[in-house]
Amino acid sequence: MNVTVGGRTRHFRTVTFDAKTNSVLLIEQRLLPHEFKIVPAKSFKETAAAIRDMIVRGAGAIGATAAYGLAQGAREVRIQNSEFRIQNKKFDLHIEKVFQTLANARPTAVDPVNAMNGVRAAMRRGKTVEEKQFLALAAAEEFASDDVHHCEEIGRHGAKLIRSGMNILTHCNAGWLAFVDIGTATAPMYAAQAQGKKFHVFCDETRPRSQGATLTAWELAQQKISHQIIADNAAGHLMQRGEIDLVIVGSDRTLGRTGEVTNKIGTYTKAVLAARHKIPFYVAIPLSTIDWNLKRGLDIPIEERSESEVCGAWGVLADGHQFGKRKYIRVANPTSRARNPGFDVTPPELISGIITSAGIFKPKELWKYREKLQSSPRG
Amino acid sequence: MNVTVGGRTRHFRTVTFDAKTNSVLLIEQRLLPHEFKIVPAKSFKETAAAIRDMIVRGAGAIGATAAYGLAQGAREVRIQNSEFRIQNKKFDLHIEKVFQTLANARPTAVDPVNAMNGVRAAMRRGKTVEEKQFLALAAAEEFASDDVHHCEEIGRHGAKLIRSGMNILTHCNAGWLAFVDIGTATAPMYAAQAQGKKFHVFCDETRPRSQGATLTAWELAQQKISHQIIADNAAGHLMQRGEIDLVIVGSDRTLGRTGEVTNKIGTYTKAVLAARHKIPFYVAIPLSTIDWNLKRGLDIPIEERSESEVCGAWGVLADGHQFGKRKYIRVANPTSRARNPGFDVTPPELISGIITSAGIFKPKELWKYREKLQSSPRG
Repeated sequence: MNVTVGGRTRHFRTVTFDAKTNSVLLIEQRLLPHEFKIVPAKSFKETAAAIRDMIVRGAGAIGATAAYGLAQGAREVRIQNSEFRIQNKKFDLHIEKVFQTLANARPTAVDPVNAMNGVRAAMRRGKTVEEKQFLALAAAEEFASDDVHHCEEIGRHGAKLIRSGMNILTHCNAGWLAFVDIGTATAPMYAAQAQGKKFHVFCDETRPRSQGATLTAWELAQQKISHQIIADNAAGHLMQRGEIDLVIVGSDRTLGRTGEVTNKIGTYTKAVLAARHKIPFYVAIPLSTIDWNLKRGLDIPIEERSESEVCGAWGVLADGHQFGKRKYIRVANPTSRARNPGFDVTPPELISGIITSAGIFKPKELWKYREKLQSSPRG
Repeated sequence: MNVTVGGRTRHFRTVTFDAKTNSVLLIEQRLLPHEFKIVPAKSFKETAAAIRDMIVRGAGAIGATAAYGLAQGAREVRIQNSEFRIQNKKFDLHIEKVFQTLANARPTAVDPVNAMNGVRAAMRRGKTVEEKQFLALAAAEEFASDDVHHCEEIGRHGAKLIRSGMNILTHCNAGWLAFVDIGTATAPMYAAQAQGKKFHVFCDETRPRSQGATLTAWELAQQKISHQIIADNAAGHLMQRGEIDLVIVGSDRTLGRTGEVTNKIGTYTKAVLAARHKIPFYVAIPLSTIDWNLKRGLDIPIEERSESEVCGAWGVLADGHQFGKRKYIRVANPTSRARNPGFDVTPPELISGIITSAGIFKPKELWKYREKLQSSPRG
């Protein structure tokens, strides 16, 4: 999507690859929204560190980063004129090391592993190290392009839900920063904007990590979409007074058997409120995040995150400099502890539809269409 | 309630009067939870400034502060041996000025005016300036004691709802810091604790002003009640997993005709969630906050507060010093704006009961019992 830096507007992807320097180029997301900077990860180890340290985050974005990282690691091997088999064997051992290093950067995330499996499968078609290196990068580039294409398709289907004059609520960041480009929950908005529709977006602040107030608000501002940040507490009141017409959120994991949706903590609350006020509640997802195995949402482990997220906040001091170094402040009573579940599960009866690259489905219909959805391109 | 400072536990009220120095003594609430300090307001003008600058906040607390402030202003007049009538007339003009100064400190609040009306009525029973000064202070002391007594009664009725082993959710701060002592939403908890019951409290963070994370958590910590702070987004998830058994909140204004409750933004959301999960949802109020005139909640004006509250937070830098000076950080995207409604309205069908000093009532029964409730002592 577009970013304006120093008055100049350019198109950026969250992650790209520079073949000349064999570097993965990443938007340094920890500096957003206060500073926009592209950082190069110059080796597969730096790429793994970037995933681990959350320079890059979000399902599609870390998938593409790992895919590029595996290609990058493959290309770090210098081609020698030694005996063909030995070279290949050493190379395969090296690739295994690269794969594990990148996979271990975020051990609970499935996207990096899925993406790298695709790259590794493509490499197997090559006979020489050189061929494998070429195929690895081509597969990584294809992964990234597919990610963009699937988000475009989500946008094409989802844009039909948006009419001019609507007020739309979104929660957390399922925007282009979480993918290679375009995003999922934001895709219908960007597509509707391209169709000339005018609408307004409320971004939930999304405490404790505030990704709505920081990342989604930044994205919408860069894309010049009318928006306002609200406290998570305010959505119910706005719905009650008729000020929200549509809710679109993302999902980290959707159960194909039940239609239950796991997403950032607070999503369930918005769904309960939307149902009470008969406001359509949609979830936009890449097909790759559908879990076809798990039988019930109650079995989804809910990550308990650091108490410090609830007890304080990150931001810049308003000391005259608009952009400063981000600092952490403790807001809460210093002698109190916190509970911090990171995600919640929304049941299917609260969800109007699941927006995918293959169309919009009722959550309980996912299982009926599983053959179609499982054979659809990843996305 | 109790506060432990430097290892020593003492009982404090939010506001008291020191007759010797003619000062209103206040807990400097803007320093909480990071620092506990009692500050003296040495003249009625300083007392008005303390109300205006929110050194003291909360219905009962600012009511008592204004009552003491009026007595303080009365006592600032030196008794001269001049002619009786002139002295009295001058005095009455002075009292009018004191009254207006204190009332204007928080022009939309009704509690200071109601409290001062009581003090002024008591003064009318005096003939001399000296008598009036004496009666003013006695009336202010009575106001403060009544406030405490009514909170005790709320606690007595509400404690019956609490069983050992319960997990209780509260939103924002309707604790003793908002009153002279004990509080409303917290009163049943303090009473149940005194009865030896063991329970756990979840404090909603209550963004944007975070009074749950700061004030309620501080109160509960001082009172040694087991508690944890949660993001406002987390309550729904905890209810879904059976981790909340009871909700008790306060209210700024309850409509006697309809049973609708106005309280800090986010209260409505918790009520909707509690109803879905069949969790009892109670509102603890002083009778003085019942509005017997307004016909519907939709007519309650909802204050739109400063955007800065949503876009950032106040806290102390974690730079090695546990207690530092509070600083404001900007969290949100610097080019985005915010909506910030301060309150919301919860309809009666979501409320299990209204806990008052006169007993617990169904919200729609308030009107039926209006004669009893209107003739009950203020509180």
